[in-house]
Amino acid sequence: MSKSRAYIYQLFDPHDGGQGLERVFDGILLGLVLLNGAAVVLGSVKSLYASYKPYFVAIEVVSVYVFTLEYALRVWSCVEDRRFQRSIGGRLRFMRTPMALVDLLAILPFYLSIAGIDLRILRLLRLFRLLKVARYVRALQVIGQVVRRKRPELLVTTGVIGLMLVLVSSLMYVVESEAQPDKFGSIPETMWWGVATLTTVGYGDVYPITVAGKLLSSIIAVLGLGLFALPTGILAAGFSEQLAQQRIATEVPVYCPHCGHKL
Amino acid sequence: MSKSRAYIYQLFDPHDGGQGLERVFDGILLGLVLLNGAAVVLGSVKSLYASYKPYFVAIEVVSVYVFTLEYALRVWSCVEDRRFQRSIGGRLRFMRTPMALVDLLAILPFYLSIAGIDLRILRLLRLFRLLKVARYVRALQVIGQVVRRKRPELLVTTGVIGLMLVLVSSLMYVVESEAQPDKFGSIPETMWWGVATLTTVGYGDVYPITVAGKLLSSIIAVLGLGLFALPTGILAAGFSEQLAQQRIATEVPVYCPHCGHKL
Amino acid sequence: MSKSRAYIYQLFDPHDGGQGLERVFDGILLGLVLLNGAAVVLGSVKSLYASYKPYFVAIEVVSVYVFTLEYALRVWSCVEDRRFQRSIGGRLRFMRTPMALVDLLAILPFYLSIAGIDLRILRLLRLFRLLKVARYVRALQVIGQVVRRKRPELLVTTGVIGLMLVLVSSLMYVVESEAQPDKFGSIPETMWWGVATLTTVGYGDVYPITVAGKLLSSIIAVLGLGLFALPTGILAAGFSEQLAQQRIATEVPVYCPHCGHKL
Amino acid sequence: MSKSRAYIYQLFDPHDGGQGLERVFDGILLGLVLLNGAAVVLGSVKSLYASYKPYFVAIEVVSVYVFTLEYALRVWSCVEDRRFQRSIGGRLRFMRTPMALVDLLAILPFYLSIAGIDLRILRLLRLFRLLKVARYVRALQVIGQVVRRKRPELLVTTGVIGLMLVLVSSLMYVVESEAQPDKFGSIPETMWWGVATLTTVGYGDVYPITVAGKLLSSIIAVLGLGLFALPTGILAAGFSEQLAQQRIATEVPVYCPHCGHKL
Repeated sequence: MSKSRAYIYQLFDPHDGGQGLERVFDGILLGLVLLNGAAVVLGSVKSLYASYKPYFVAIEVVSVYVFTLEYALRVWSCVEDRRFQRSIGGRLRFMRTPMALVDLLAILPFYLSIAGIDLRILRLLRLFRLLKVARYVRALQVIGQVVRRKRPELLVTTGVIGLMLVLVSSLMYVVESEAQPDKFGSIPETMWWGVATLTTVGYGDVYPITVAGKLLSSIIAVLGLGLFALPTGILAAGFSEQLAQQRIATEVPVYCPHCGHKL
Repeated sequence: MSKSRAYIYQLFDPHDGGQGLERVFDGILLGLVLLNGAAVVLGSVKSLYASYKPYFVAIEVVSVYVFTLEYALRVWSCVEDRRFQRSIGGRLRFMRTPMALVDLLAILPFYLSIAGIDLRILRLLRLFRLLKVARYVRALQVIGQVVRRKRPELLVTTGVIGLMLVLVSSLMYVVESEAQPDKFGSIPETMWWGVATLTTVGYGDVYPITVAGKLLSSIIAVLGLGLFALPTGILAAGFSEQLAQQRIATEVPVYCPHCGHKL
Repeated sequence: MSKSRAYIYQLFDPHDGGQGLERVFDGILLGLVLLNGAAVVLGSVKSLYASYKPYFVAIEVVSVYVFTLEYALRVWSCVEDRRFQRSIGGRLRFMRTPMALVDLLAILPFYLSIAGIDLRILRLLRLFRLLKVARYVRALQVIGQVVRRKRPELLVTTGVIGLMLVLVSSLMYVVESEAQPDKFGSIPETMWWGVATLTTVGYGDVYPITVAGKLLSSIIAVLGLGLFALPTGILAAGFSEQLAQQRIATEVPVYCPHCGHKL
Repeated sequence: MSKSRAYIYQLFDPHDGGQGLERVFDGILLGLVLLNGAAVVLGSVKSLYASYKPYFVAIEVVSVYVFTLEYALRVWSCVEDRRFQRSIGGRLRFMRTPMALVDLLAILPFYLSIAGIDLRILRLLRLFRLLKVARYVRALQVIGQVVRRKRPELLVTTGVIGLMLVLVSSLMYVVESEAQPDKFGSIPETMWWGVATLTTVGYGDVYPITVAGKLLSSIIAVLGLGLFALPTGILAAGFSEQLAQQRIATEVPVYCPHCGHKL
């Protein structure tokens, strides 16, 4: 029993990157995840769904079956991991890890819809299955590490951006609301203009038409770009650092200058 | 007297980051500031204001009362600070510090409106109360330090941007004003196009339609982006440096696991 | 025979950067490539093509003749290169190198059109001749080196961007498809909005009109910019590193003006 | 004679940054330049020009008088500079320096218009007077140094951008010209779309409407942003380096490690 459990555990989560069978197994699961994503995206095109309904249903049923089996086996075998050793408490803790929650969200909508709860939004939740990709493509986990590493910087800049958006939209509301009461009629409405301007998206559905509004908008646009680009710059820097570190970690050994041991 | 004054001073501006009661106190004031910001933003939506007028008024009155008390106590206790020791001169100097001015601006509009001066813009000034957040969220002060640190670079690039905007808009005015006299009718009007193009917002309300105008606009857009993105790059770099410095200053030392020497 | 072959080889691919005649020869070929590019671009303007048809045809015929000769001579002389020494196997391998394929693509459309296969797309393939520029302008090869060097980073970020685009567009589809079934009618259609928003292009043909859609769009725009700008940041960093390395490699040594030692 | 010439030379171009009178003198000239710029910009607004014509004319006449005098005195006194010592050859060489040409362009339009050549474009040339600012605001010269320093990088990236714009527009022309012959009717016309998309300006006057066009446009937008942002990244980096160097140059002395002399 414990032997096959250890084998299953190793199959799902090979600690050495995986070999032979484990890699094939990973490839199949990853392929199924991607096929599923494609099915959800293409299935939203009504004409396509009408024409190929049996195929979309088949993909859905088969993958829910496989993902349910996968989830059950993972929960069963997780106790092989030191962190989740106790048979009930450990398993419950495992089920609360982010990836296990993603696995659960990937199958839940299907069972809820069978149980009669068939909300439109529920069916879209199936897309969260795409997040399962993160388990198989190790590189995708880098983005999470970068966000965690740069969390203080990102929090500060997001806070500053939020504060600035409110202040800027309030000023614009005072200046422009009389000329265009339908588009700048309240501060929350004006914030839609603020987002479009400060992110430089500029759809063109809302823009100032008074001279004062254009002047204020110009000043805001020139000064505000800097702030809105800060999270970008921080993420890019963190990304470079993270990948540089990983490259170094697998390349040049570092020695302690005092005792000469490899660190 | 002096003892309770010292206590109040410590309560408002704890020199050691704050403990127990001081933190709770800070949290309440911060919450009130944020509640106030939300009230001003949502209160600008006419239908919301009409439905919940008593609540909006209550938030306004209570917070002005609290902020007035806060301002009075800060002015009274500021002499505990070495910088503002003299009872009148020191207090006057304290009242001229940026944060004290923000505190004053946060309550002034209310008293002016009671005194009969009820301008629309005055009511908006209440939003400056949001700047009080900077007092409670230490992280927000980083942005100010970065701007101060990079001031020469930011001044130079802002100057270059301004000069370039004028030159570019003048060229465009010569090329395009005949074809679109309503949108490119003068240099200041053309500058609205210049801002929209060089910041890449591109609302779409103004764009060249002649071949010469499109050609010039293309050249300007490709070459100009670099200049307009300079302040962004400078800010992002300054931000990283600032936070890296703070991190180093508080960083945990690393020891060699073999010999125990600090690395 | 072998001597003239070696001479031709040296003429086309001077290993020492080229001198006298070789540089003139390179300049002529580069000029012809650029002339060709201009001809294809301008020839697509119907009125221009109608007025100057003989010139366009002449440029086409002459350059195909020259490029054919160039291709033949390169294939013939390539065996002078150690990598392609064997007379048939070596030449076949040479013909599979990227630059040799570009050379072939530059002349193939012409011969296919003579052979009766006259597709519109084929004529456009002539534009690939512009890629021949890379052979003569060494600096253009830097971009390829940067992409190769930063491949892992670029792959990861492109993957993240793709995943995010799908998730974000699905959410928006749920929120907005009822209000605007013509523009947000399916996930693939909504992805057109996603690209326009996350790249900040914002043409203005598609944008949310419901409050929920605007709110979601705002959050996506602010958070998403960072991810879409990552490849940019990575490329820019790689570019600087690459050019810095090359500069160091060819840099002039600096000497102390007092003692003459190299610093 | 020579003494007053040396005095004038020192007045216009103080080698030690200037003191007392020289600074006042500089300030007056800079003020006149800025006043002139404002006059040209505001004078293009027809209603303003009609109302305040005498003032605009006065500013024009006075400043041309002053700038003519300045130009004459600079040409006369330039021989004090070692580089322009010979009385005729030296002065001619001085007149060919960029700043002297700007000085000439600042006054030429006025004299040409007196001579009867009154072209609209000529009057706009007066705006080049704004470039005189560069003489008085030392910081503005940094931008020129950065461009010179990063010239190879900027040339390469500009070349790559140009090549890419042509290739991308050609592909789009093939895909979209049949559906929208008025907007994608030729490659040069399609390049207007290319610039708007790749710079992310996105005015919204031109965008693909076919599925193939939208797909191609999406791929181009995502991949192309990186290239178009390269010059920006390079400029920003160069700018930081330049200012960091200047800061170091005026702060920490550097010594030769061999002889100990200050470098």
